[in-house]
Amino acid sequence: MDTLISIGEKARIASTFLGKLGTIEKNDALTSVANAILQNKIYIVEANNVDIENAKRNGMKPALVDRLTLTEARLNGMAEGLFQLVGLEDPIGEVISMKKRPNGLIIGNKRVPLGVIAIIYESRPNVTADAFGLCFKSGNAVILRGGSDAIHSNIAIVKVITDALNSVRADTNSIQLITDTNHEVVKELMHLNKYIDVIIPRGGAGLIKTVVENSTIPVIETGTGNCHVYVDESADFEMALDIIYNAKTQRIGVCNACESLVINKAIADAFIPKVIDRLSEKNVEVRGDELSQTIDSRVVLASEEDWGKEYLDYIISIKIVNDIDEAIAHINKYNTKHSESIITKDYDNSQKFLNEIDAAAVYVNASTRFTDGFEFGFGAEIGISTQKLHARGPMGLKELTTNKYIIYGNGQVRP
Amino acid sequence: MDTLISIGEKARIASTFLGKLGTIEKNDALTSVANAILQNKIYIVEANNVDIENAKRNGMKPALVDRLTLTEARLNGMAEGLFQLVGLEDPIGEVISMKKRPNGLIIGNKRVPLGVIAIIYESRPNVTADAFGLCFKSGNAVILRGGSDAIHSNIAIVKVITDALNSVRADTNSIQLITDTNHEVVKELMHLNKYIDVIIPRGGAGLIKTVVENSTIPVIETGTGNCHVYVDESADFEMALDIIYNAKTQRIGVCNACESLVINKAIADAFIPKVIDRLSEKNVEVRGDELSQTIDSRVVLASEEDWGKEYLDYIISIKIVNDIDEAIAHINKYNTKHSESIITKDYDNSQKFLNEIDAAAVYVNASTRFTDGFEFGFGAEIGISTQKLHARGPMGLKELTTNKYIIYGNGQVRP
Repeated sequence: MDTLISIGEKARIASTFLGKLGTIEKNDALTSVANAILQNKIYIVEANNVDIENAKRNGMKPALVDRLTLTEARLNGMAEGLFQLVGLEDPIGEVISMKKRPNGLIIGNKRVPLGVIAIIYESRPNVTADAFGLCFKSGNAVILRGGSDAIHSNIAIVKVITDALNSVRADTNSIQLITDTNHEVVKELMHLNKYIDVIIPRGGAGLIKTVVENSTIPVIETGTGNCHVYVDESADFEMALDIIYNAKTQRIGVCNACESLVINKAIADAFIPKVIDRLSEKNVEVRGDELSQTIDSRVVLASEEDWGKEYLDYIISIKIVNDIDEAIAHINKYNTKHSESIITKDYDNSQKFLNEIDAAAVYVNASTRFTDGFEFGFGAEIGISTQKLHARGPMGLKELTTNKYIIYGNGQVRP
Repeated sequence: MDTLISIGEKARIASTFLGKLGTIEKNDALTSVANAILQNKIYIVEANNVDIENAKRNGMKPALVDRLTLTEARLNGMAEGLFQLVGLEDPIGEVISMKKRPNGLIIGNKRVPLGVIAIIYESRPNVTADAFGLCFKSGNAVILRGGSDAIHSNIAIVKVITDALNSVRADTNSIQLITDTNHEVVKELMHLNKYIDVIIPRGGAGLIKTVVENSTIPVIETGTGNCHVYVDESADFEMALDIIYNAKTQRIGVCNACESLVINKAIADAFIPKVIDRLSEKNVEVRGDELSQTIDSRVVLASEEDWGKEYLDYIISIKIVNDIDEAIAHINKYNTKHSESIITKDYDNSQKFLNEIDAAAVYVNASTRFTDGFEFGFGAEIGISTQKLHARGPMGLKELTTNKYIIYGNGQVRP
């Protein structure tokens, strides 16, 4: 297998090739790749079966085996994702601004690819094709390091992609998979500053923490979401119940699911029994502070640890607060800067919440579940950034680009 | 002295305060600080004298002693910089985009402060006031770690600033100086992810490398510039000579100075003696490849190391290439992604250079010395980013901000 340095060098060369490709050429290649995935479904499913058998033998939990599984429908979805990318506007080459300076210099700011992006991800093999498609359309070469559980699936998907790229004479090193499953490889990868411009970890909190703490390459942190819904004194109860039920239970294992409720004290007596009733339809365990326990005996006493926890499960916490300032302080202290929502009829409180909550997405009267590239209308998504540098919130094609100043002169020198 | 964690906590609180400040309040505070600097020139100069005496006693080179020195004129300039910031548009609160989705959600993207910025810098004490001003106007709290050489100057400047902030009832922790000169403190600072959003090193290559390699906080890399001027076959010689002379000698110790010439072979015989004549006016040493040495015996033979070197001195390297493709390949291999210029009359070559050079600023027929926030019309500058993430090129107020999605709903839940 290639050494990491050789993979880095090849990616660098491929990125130069990709930076020069026009939109039509990129779209043609993506179409070929999508068709190749449809034509090779059996080949990919067979490779995936090897991973699934290994996973079952190793005692993987059914929910994780399900995430690992590539059905025909999921492969159709994978191809569909690539076809959709073809239809999206190419972000590369857009001149965002251009101004003439008093000395006659014309200074423009143009959108260009980042260069080489490394993505470290866990067991879902469909990320392989999604990440390739987004990076390719935005003119970036990608180096992928998937989970060892999905290694056969990933090798098969990458082979189908590179064969298709080869058939249209695109640089096959536009996508490279690191097949060495040794953990040391990831450490080395995180220090390849010479070849890699950005590293994006996609997966659990542990993976993200490891990358943030060890990478010398700039990182875009994605993922963990300890999202809150604050029910204000003036909230419409029916709306609050619908939104909380949706944000907590519509899909529990995702980063934009609600993990914690913050309830204004003035309505706590009336609202808490109702929300517990509603959540009990899905057997959600409710952990709350002492006051909420005195209001409804179904509440399990929460520990300090609960306030900061991303359960990703049928569990939710409840904190009762005296006013909106206390709600905002509580949320800003324990949140992961992902998505937060207020349910209110009060104008001032809605504005205060929007202004003062520190998070990628702040909602008034809507479910936190909407924080998503597709729901935001980007047409695609590489992940949800919870950091403040470069990109915040759902990241689409534009977030995989950088800018370059282009300056037209006619002999200017600096006085 | 405060522990770093206590400094971090106070900065976090100050950043919340700053995030809520209106433009008028921020401008009033900046005006007070600028006036206080003017009123306390003698106090600051006295503190600066202690640093200068210590520096001389420790054998600091005259050029560095000069950088360390705060004259009355430089203090006037420091205050002037703050007055100019008052006049610049406040970037905070701008809603960059807002769209209504088919489900009725109104999704806006708003510019907000980064939060807490740490800046590690070397001996120039005027950075203390500049960095404070930029961070304050953009709503960020700043933690400064200056060089130990300038510690008395920095303590005095920060005292003047915080006294002025106190007088207008702004949070004095908007600016905090780390006075512990122990190197271990910097290591600890680079891991305070809980309190600091971004870290910006300003100084030499060694400092920047240390921060990039050790910080777990997102870094904006600034600085080092191995900038090239490529003289194309069709170049106007007079223009090329003026631009090279300016880019190399107008100010030698800066990151946007030219360090290397790339010359098209077709004009090498005619051009090289002329450019050496011109550069000899400032006694510039010319190091070149073998061919350039055969053309002009004043050329000292360059080593491989020369191609990648940021001299910051009266030295320049010369590389002769066969065509523009070789020029672009050479520059992209050895540059630091800062500023590159082509001198040409050829349309296709100008476009090719603009498209294919990988750098923050790419010029046609102008000096690389223009890469600067003031020259670009930003009105202020915190540094020049040579990385691709978040900001590339000169960074003004906008580059010290991030975005937040604000979403207005009326009960939407995700189907």
